[in-house]
Amino acid sequence: MIFGPRLRGLLDALRCLPGVGPKSAQRMALHLLERDREGAEGLAAALEDALAHVRRCAQCRMFAESELCPVCESHSRDSTLVCVVESPADVIAVEESGGYRGRYFVLLGRLSPIDGVGPAELGIDDLESLMSGGEVRELIIATSATVEGEATAGFLGGIARNHGIPATRIAHGVPVGGELEYVDGGTLSRAIAGRSAIRDDA
Amino acid sequence: MIFGPRLRGLLDALRCLPGVGPKSAQRMALHLLERDREGAEGLAAALEDALAHVRRCAQCRMFAESELCPVCESHSRDSTLVCVVESPADVIAVEESGGYRGRYFVLLGRLSPIDGVGPAELGIDDLESLMSGGEVRELIIATSATVEGEATAGFLGGIARNHGIPATRIAHGVPVGGELEYVDGGTLSRAIAGRSAIRDDA
Repeated sequence: MIFGPRLRGLLDALRCLPGVGPKSAQRMALHLLERDREGAEGLAAALEDALAHVRRCAQCRMFAESELCPVCESHSRDSTLVCVVESPADVIAVEESGGYRGRYFVLLGRLSPIDGVGPAELGIDDLESLMSGGEVRELIIATSATVEGEATAGFLGGIARNHGIPATRIAHGVPVGGELEYVDGGTLSRAIAGRSAIRDDA
Repeated sequence: MIFGPRLRGLLDALRCLPGVGPKSAQRMALHLLERDREGAEGLAAALEDALAHVRRCAQCRMFAESELCPVCESHSRDSTLVCVVESPADVIAVEESGGYRGRYFVLLGRLSPIDGVGPAELGIDDLESLMSGGEVRELIIATSATVEGEATAGFLGGIARNHGIPATRIAHGVPVGGELEYVDGGTLSRAIAGRSAIRDDA
């Protein structure tokens, strides 16, 4: 064996990163030890720092480094709108689209009884107390367009109804810039079912 | 900004890994913080452990966790053969081919005066003291088939000659399993120039 136990340990540890297999792990380990020891030290420190300080926002369950996340802390966001998403990556995607100024609620999953994911795991209690606060005027449900995502959306719609808050679902249809002939049948039938009137002022 | 300073620090730190851009760094950071905090702790510890304990073999400059690397320590390796390579990754490639039982010497680079890489940077002193030891009977030069690799090979050949040790160069030619029509001209002309006689017993 050409590697000692420490180098083997590093190779194994790098495999915890998504998309990193044995060959990439080897390339990363050799690169760090040969050419970027400073970067490796920085990475170890950044990992420990993030693990120690990054936690959940008490209000929306997004990553936060204090009690609340930057969005919940901000006074310039519209607190009457709450967009419910499945994961922190979805919050980032919506933020990057630049078209949304409300707040979020992160489920950290979707209803999946077979995997033991029920309302408790999705923090529905926190969402209900947010809705009871009196500020929220619309719940925008942006769970994914999968079977479980749709089931979760239906479930959330019921809860919003109980609180007397209107729930909306983001539109599903043909992507902007997409050619009709390359769009799958399911998306196309949703796009036709969800058609809207062409307004004269548009 | 949706990320706090610690999460941004982690995103930046992950970029030191080869082949990791902003999108992969984000995916890695979210994965670690959301689903594999234990893996992240293990990675931080493995990095620190490797940085503290992985150093250079005193004899061949390969990675080692004690005075000598496993190959130099081993008594079952043929110490009359020394294969000179450019990087630790090359040692691993030769080891994985399974056909070599001698020792190595790792240059950690190749002659490149324009980048300030001369004989001192390549540890030529260490190689010469290895050759003076009296055990070495052949120096196999396995630097890459690039302009700098060839220049380095020529330089090493001269040193071996001074020590009265025969130097050989690994063969360059058509890869095993390769179709002639897809091989580039430079490789093909090397393959023809380096042809060998077909022996009756083969």
